[in-house]
Amino acid sequence: MTTVGHFINGQLTTDGERTQDVYNPSTGAVSKQVVLASKATVEEAIAAAQAAFPAWRNTPAIKRARVMFKFKDLLEQNADKICQMIGEEHGKISHDAAGELQRGIENVEYACGAPELLKGEHSKNVAADVDSWSEFQPLGVVAGITPFNFPAMVPLWMYPMAIVCGNCFILKPSERDPSSTLYIASLLKEAGLPDGVMNVVNGDKEAVDTLLHDEHIKAVSFVGSTPIAEYIYATASANGKRCQALGGAKNHAIVMPDADMDNAVNQLLGAAFGSSGERCMALSVAVAVGDAAGDALVSKMTAAMKALKVGPFNDSNNDFGPVITQQHQQKVVGYIDSAEQQGATIVVDGRKPEIAGHEKGFFVGGTLIDGVTAEMESYKAEIFGPVLQVIRVDSMQAAMDLIDAHEYGNGTCIFTRDGEAARYFSDNIQVGMVGINIPLPVPVAYHSFGGWKRSLFGDLHAYGPDAVRFYTKRKTITQRWPSAGVREGVLFSMPTMS
Amino acid sequence: MTTVGHFINGQLTTDGERTQDVYNPSTGAVSKQVVLASKATVEEAIAAAQAAFPAWRNTPAIKRARVMFKFKDLLEQNADKICQMIGEEHGKISHDAAGELQRGIENVEYACGAPELLKGEHSKNVAADVDSWSEFQPLGVVAGITPFNFPAMVPLWMYPMAIVCGNCFILKPSERDPSSTLYIASLLKEAGLPDGVMNVVNGDKEAVDTLLHDEHIKAVSFVGSTPIAEYIYATASANGKRCQALGGAKNHAIVMPDADMDNAVNQLLGAAFGSSGERCMALSVAVAVGDAAGDALVSKMTAAMKALKVGPFNDSNNDFGPVITQQHQQKVVGYIDSAEQQGATIVVDGRKPEIAGHEKGFFVGGTLIDGVTAEMESYKAEIFGPVLQVIRVDSMQAAMDLIDAHEYGNGTCIFTRDGEAARYFSDNIQVGMVGINIPLPVPVAYHSFGGWKRSLFGDLHAYGPDAVRFYTKRKTITQRWPSAGVREGVLFSMPTMS
Amino acid sequence: MTTVGHFINGQLTTDGERTQDVYNPSTGAVSKQVVLASKATVEEAIAAAQAAFPAWRNTPAIKRARVMFKFKDLLEQNADKICQMIGEEHGKISHDAAGELQRGIENVEYACGAPELLKGEHSKNVAADVDSWSEFQPLGVVAGITPFNFPAMVPLWMYPMAIVCGNCFILKPSERDPSSTLYIASLLKEAGLPDGVMNVVNGDKEAVDTLLHDEHIKAVSFVGSTPIAEYIYATASANGKRCQALGGAKNHAIVMPDADMDNAVNQLLGAAFGSSGERCMALSVAVAVGDAAGDALVSKMTAAMKALKVGPFNDSNNDFGPVITQQHQQKVVGYIDSAEQQGATIVVDGRKPEIAGHEKGFFVGGTLIDGVTAEMESYKAEIFGPVLQVIRVDSMQAAMDLIDAHEYGNGTCIFTRDGEAARYFSDNIQVGMVGINIPLPVPVAYHSFGGWKRSLFGDLHAYGPDAVRFYTKRKTITQRWPSAGVREGVLFSMPTMS
Amino acid sequence: MTTVGHFINGQLTTDGERTQDVYNPSTGAVSKQVVLASKATVEEAIAAAQAAFPAWRNTPAIKRARVMFKFKDLLEQNADKICQMIGEEHGKISHDAAGELQRGIENVEYACGAPELLKGEHSKNVAADVDSWSEFQPLGVVAGITPFNFPAMVPLWMYPMAIVCGNCFILKPSERDPSSTLYIASLLKEAGLPDGVMNVVNGDKEAVDTLLHDEHIKAVSFVGSTPIAEYIYATASANGKRCQALGGAKNHAIVMPDADMDNAVNQLLGAAFGSSGERCMALSVAVAVGDAAGDALVSKMTAAMKALKVGPFNDSNNDFGPVITQQHQQKVVGYIDSAEQQGATIVVDGRKPEIAGHEKGFFVGGTLIDGVTAEMESYKAEIFGPVLQVIRVDSMQAAMDLIDAHEYGNGTCIFTRDGEAARYFSDNIQVGMVGINIPLPVPVAYHSFGGWKRSLFGDLHAYGPDAVRFYTKRKTITQRWPSAGVREGVLFSMPTMS
Repeated sequence: MTTVGHFINGQLTTDGERTQDVYNPSTGAVSKQVVLASKATVEEAIAAAQAAFPAWRNTPAIKRARVMFKFKDLLEQNADKICQMIGEEHGKISHDAAGELQRGIENVEYACGAPELLKGEHSKNVAADVDSWSEFQPLGVVAGITPFNFPAMVPLWMYPMAIVCGNCFILKPSERDPSSTLYIASLLKEAGLPDGVMNVVNGDKEAVDTLLHDEHIKAVSFVGSTPIAEYIYATASANGKRCQALGGAKNHAIVMPDADMDNAVNQLLGAAFGSSGERCMALSVAVAVGDAAGDALVSKMTAAMKALKVGPFNDSNNDFGPVITQQHQQKVVGYIDSAEQQGATIVVDGRKPEIAGHEKGFFVGGTLIDGVTAEMESYKAEIFGPVLQVIRVDSMQAAMDLIDAHEYGNGTCIFTRDGEAARYFSDNIQVGMVGINIPLPVPVAYHSFGGWKRSLFGDLHAYGPDAVRFYTKRKTITQRWPSAGVREGVLFSMPTMS
Repeated sequence: MTTVGHFINGQLTTDGERTQDVYNPSTGAVSKQVVLASKATVEEAIAAAQAAFPAWRNTPAIKRARVMFKFKDLLEQNADKICQMIGEEHGKISHDAAGELQRGIENVEYACGAPELLKGEHSKNVAADVDSWSEFQPLGVVAGITPFNFPAMVPLWMYPMAIVCGNCFILKPSERDPSSTLYIASLLKEAGLPDGVMNVVNGDKEAVDTLLHDEHIKAVSFVGSTPIAEYIYATASANGKRCQALGGAKNHAIVMPDADMDNAVNQLLGAAFGSSGERCMALSVAVAVGDAAGDALVSKMTAAMKALKVGPFNDSNNDFGPVITQQHQQKVVGYIDSAEQQGATIVVDGRKPEIAGHEKGFFVGGTLIDGVTAEMESYKAEIFGPVLQVIRVDSMQAAMDLIDAHEYGNGTCIFTRDGEAARYFSDNIQVGMVGINIPLPVPVAYHSFGGWKRSLFGDLHAYGPDAVRFYTKRKTITQRWPSAGVREGVLFSMPTMS
Repeated sequence: MTTVGHFINGQLTTDGERTQDVYNPSTGAVSKQVVLASKATVEEAIAAAQAAFPAWRNTPAIKRARVMFKFKDLLEQNADKICQMIGEEHGKISHDAAGELQRGIENVEYACGAPELLKGEHSKNVAADVDSWSEFQPLGVVAGITPFNFPAMVPLWMYPMAIVCGNCFILKPSERDPSSTLYIASLLKEAGLPDGVMNVVNGDKEAVDTLLHDEHIKAVSFVGSTPIAEYIYATASANGKRCQALGGAKNHAIVMPDADMDNAVNQLLGAAFGSSGERCMALSVAVAVGDAAGDALVSKMTAAMKALKVGPFNDSNNDFGPVITQQHQQKVVGYIDSAEQQGATIVVDGRKPEIAGHEKGFFVGGTLIDGVTAEMESYKAEIFGPVLQVIRVDSMQAAMDLIDAHEYGNGTCIFTRDGEAARYFSDNIQVGMVGINIPLPVPVAYHSFGGWKRSLFGDLHAYGPDAVRFYTKRKTITQRWPSAGVREGVLFSMPTMS
Repeated sequence: MTTVGHFINGQLTTDGERTQDVYNPSTGAVSKQVVLASKATVEEAIAAAQAAFPAWRNTPAIKRARVMFKFKDLLEQNADKICQMIGEEHGKISHDAAGELQRGIENVEYACGAPELLKGEHSKNVAADVDSWSEFQPLGVVAGITPFNFPAMVPLWMYPMAIVCGNCFILKPSERDPSSTLYIASLLKEAGLPDGVMNVVNGDKEAVDTLLHDEHIKAVSFVGSTPIAEYIYATASANGKRCQALGGAKNHAIVMPDADMDNAVNQLLGAAFGSSGERCMALSVAVAVGDAAGDALVSKMTAAMKALKVGPFNDSNNDFGPVITQQHQQKVVGYIDSAEQQGATIVVDGRKPEIAGHEKGFFVGGTLIDGVTAEMESYKAEIFGPVLQVIRVDSMQAAMDLIDAHEYGNGTCIFTRDGEAARYFSDNIQVGMVGINIPLPVPVAYHSFGGWKRSLFGDLHAYGPDAVRFYTKRKTITQRWPSAGVREGVLFSMPTMS
């Protein structure tokens, strides 16, 4: 059986005594073993990164960027292979994996603009004959800790920008679907990246804690659940590091009475069930303003869901695949059960999907729940499954109050035709990423990704312009040149010359 | 005896049971009492700020900026009064207080540019007919905790930018010299700031901890010593807040053999002894490269120091005044003693200054110590007094290694005429603020202030462009307008009309 | 009778042989004489500016900005006096003059941010050990030529930014209402501006041509009619100068069937008739989509216009005052006549307003014309009077085609509630300044003002960020420091020392 | 014999009746014929561009950028072929052609960052509930006219940025070496660019004048000699177009007494003689400060020049090749003759180089002239050949005065070790591109290229950030949404529901 290891100092290794099973969620079978890094292995990666830093820091930004140009080419050339790896271990269908990879590549494209992005601010004559400028210098060795649900994309939110800014990187990806992440990182070597600049260590809490406590790690980027995000942020900060920690979400769409309902249903279908709802930007709650909107939404959504296909990752006709583990499958079903028990109506029930030939796969079918209230467990928690819950309220303000009362503030959306409603919503809602008739308002790579409230801890968002600031530190130089007599007064002429 | 209190919701109050003495360091006498806020008083201020936030947030940035235009005028009109207040409680001479105030006003000037500084990023057509833009919205209620040494300037690094970005502010200034800070803040009301937007609470650890734990406080800016900065950063971060915490410093100047030595001595004189060395940017170590440079430096500096005048704040002929407290006076003297005991040479000894008529004032005279080494206590610690120590090394690289080995990385400087040496130094030194022939490289208000290593905890520096990012959070909106039939196809014409 | 002259090198002068009458348009009487500068007088101003340039260029931007801070204060303190001057010579009512002045002051406020706006771009390590940065240096002596309709505001679009960028300025304002312009410029001296940096010459074509041909003038900003703008642009360009020349306008509002009609009428009232329509952003054509919208618009507008008051400038109850000259009054009336003759309906007729006690004033009443077509003279020309023309079309696309077919492209507006219509309109319309439910979409001072098509000749718009680029030239420095042996290798140590 | 034609609407064509010889300057033989476009052919290209514009304008910037990513790959893959084409027709050696191409590719890399570069400025709440933002929209069809000396690079300064900004482009390259330009442009089709977006027309004044007068051309970028640049600028401007016209140069290096003379000589060698001096940034005048510096410079340069190899393009051991035509060869020789006649000393004489086997090639050898004065013809003119002239002055100020007195202000350089001299020089010299110990201070692609004085006519420089502004026009939208009742008040609830 294949063993998935680490990528340290330009070498793939499988050092380590502890291992863990990697599953194929479409079949329920164990497919590989992943090695869990010890403290010593993580420190080996850190040492490699530390050693590579001085030369990489001094490499002109344009040359660093050219590694990214080449990396983009390699990612595109190897896209099918990568998507296959993702599908086998995560379960997502190839078109969905391709979408994930494409969003990841867009971050590489953005990193290609490093020479522009790293420009400092120059002020002539801040006082007579005194100039001052600010440079944005790399931090040193920085780390990323990433979740299972986007094994390609979320790491690509982090290390291309970190690296192109002149840092060296240690990635601790999810141990549940490690293969694509490891493979992609190794392409950087082929793209010309010097050994040691990029390193991947698979592992668990031991690896994480090593990163959080090692004095050579200057910054930590994290994406995962909120409790872990809080732990990461508090621990890294207490150790004097920079930290940005992205946590959970509960993303609501307000469906206004004037919405284009067919469009809204069509959009919500993908946003709620795509990737089995295992996205921190999944749209999991529809808030209908008024019962007319609510009835139309439920009725049209019920009809639309009849065409949804759930099944194994390697059939591209499927709309979505299994969830990541059996435990998670049971957890999702448990939330549906609890909603039912607490009085909601299970309009479309995906608890027992029949997937011929894949009976042991970790599948949950698309589920629609009506009559949900803010008190229900299924509403409070992030389900992270293919479940769309409908809440009905009697005004837009009530819908906004509901959203603002939730602990998370990652993404949200409004469906309306009305300019005023959209503007009021986007201005006032306490959520970091807002869609207007866009149910998955993930910012493009040249903006930045980040939620509000307990969805993100830190000053700066992920990727985009904020990543430049997160992965660099400002140095401000103030300069005056006292006269050295070289310029003025001194005569060198020969009297006979002129 | 005057009691100095708080400024809450537009009102000066002296609520509170606990008080503390405020001294006139030039005489050693107690001059006032300052009230130390209880948890309840701090919460009252927070509640006032919270109540003021919605309206202030919705006030257009240009109108918020106009409060700052008016505030600048008022600060200039009341400069003498403010400098007098500073001098009485801090001890600095009027020209020094005026300089402090001026640097503070420059931050108000910068805040006047809020409409430009708060511009978001707009992207047309991120996909077909989809637009996206990022706004920088205020955080809510934010807090500042500031030190005694710049009672006017350091608070002005914080709240003008915080407020002009749309936040409400709670300032916890130093309880040792509270009067000028309180007075200045109250001028904002005269400048037209709505009540509750700016609040000042005097206090001690109880006030600080209330701010660090209250869920309504979204961000904390701190300037003080490194141990406290670490505590603030770890505690605020563990409570999910943004934090920037600026700590201690040990600022070195490298004196190169090719330096213009008269200029260097002249510059160092002010940088080392100005404000009694109680500046986080004070230049307290001169590193001479080669003994020729060292000898010339010590000789010329000794001569120059003969003209230094130390004395009470209200005689503007004095160069600098007392230190802040008797305990601090003794601590500074203790460091000089320890240097002597550890083998250094006290070239100019300021341990027993004679200030006629002010025998009880907390004075320390300008002190020059030669033959200092990296192992001495006086070198390791931040003395925060009028003491310049000279270390001699045999190469510029040795000088840089010394600086990089110190735990602090606030400011540094090189004296040289050589372009290459200056560029190598500014590029590589692990210090956040670098001077080239500028001994106090405090960035101008339109750049940002921040050290490296253990001199600053956080992602973003104080004031300037970084302050905009620190005091706002990014919200990214993605927008598509599905056709509503309003634009296309629909005909409204009367056949008879055309 | 008062003679209005020039402001040259810090002195008010009335040098010059030729003069011209200045009228009070509210009474029709001659009130003053303005001196028309000869070529020699203009050259004297240029020489003064040229002499002042070297020192002003070297004055730190922050100090230049502080002149603007003070200038803002002086403008606010003298606002009533300035508005009175404007009213007497231009005829606009005090509230309108106050609005004009306020928009002008906003440009001064923007200029106060010069230190931020003038930051250059700094790139470290463009190659190994090579740095490069771009500075934005002033041009030298630059000129502005401005129209009668905003004697305070339009000059303030230009010279505050030009001056704060480090240039010296020659203003040739309109000779029809010269007093406020001259007075305002002279306040700069009181604000601390060195003599010669700002100069005003009143004059006619002789002055203009001197500016266009003098080799010391590096750039020309112009606002006026399109034929003159074209002449200015071609002539200045042929002489190798930078030029931005803003010309005429014909600003249309599309009134959609879903518009809030009461709001639209209310907005259009001010936009069409304010300042007697003598604004390059006046909204002079309403394009109703469908007859229902057209009928409602005409009906409600007719009713609303009953309350319009036209009369002398010094009665603040009036909504608008006279037009600038008798000839212009006759021209406006002529356009109304021609519309009538060509088949349009004069719904509200302002051709013979009765203004008791001001029978000789140059008044035209608010006029509403329905049934206008694209072929009519009154449609093709910029009337520059209080005349609103209504065109009816049968689709939004037809309305946009009409706008795009007009030679001008200054401002435009759409009244609608629909997000999609607004977005399509703002994206595609060939007009530089677009309002969505905003009839006078004059950009705020921190954006820039400029039309498209034959409304502006040049690359860069007026005021705001574009003004920084227009009034500065880029200088790019690339720097490498070869080793001079100062840093490396060289030992200076005394063997006995360590 | 091969006929070189046009690239119009995605097709290579050789339409046209008039042709002109293309030479191989290394042999002196005619190698190809180039077709000279008629007015009709140019108009055909314009029509194709006009037709392609609407769809290209609406293509998201990220998709436009991806064409550039692919274009970069194709340029790199076909580099050898392109360099061969350049060498055959221009005469430059392959390493020089490769350098040219690389600098061109860097502009393509910069264009890949379009999504970031095209971000507009967004202001929330410019007034209560009013937002405003500025977009940078493409101009339409724009044109470039480029010189013979960089057939690959200079066109690549223009069209990648123009196209990625959403414009369509007509390139009129030099008819003397048209093949590489045409081939490179055709690679854009392979990179996925839609037909009509990029077009190349070879031609002469008829083609140029068509471009300058056609109303569909919205902007013209030009690089060539100053007289033509002036004609282009005046004509395009008179026709209401944007224009940036880059003209001639006379680039001086100041050699200070403290310069590292070996380094200076080594740098000057390439800067003066590389590409036969046919570069607008060629360093053609060395100004020695003091005779000691002058003597050392001449002596060391004379020695270094002994190793210079001139010869045919296809021998990569050569340092430089022939000049472009026989006429130009004679012109260069004529300038050397005139210097001699006017009293200068021809230290190294390249007037009669012996190139075995290439006796008819248009060669001029490296030439060093000492004792040049400002009055000589050879000093006043841009020679554009491998000729370095030495002037001796007695102070740095005299050297700067000399540079500032010259009509051109493209590039300049100082060789010194002194920070103060370098800073004074770069601050004050009236030249747009300044090198400090860098003799060819061509800005990197992420800065912009442009001279001062009569070296550039226009507001904005070529390529880099300025290109974004030159190839887009600002549109500012101001938006308010009046309440439509959709959001507020309206109740939709069913009483039975809650």
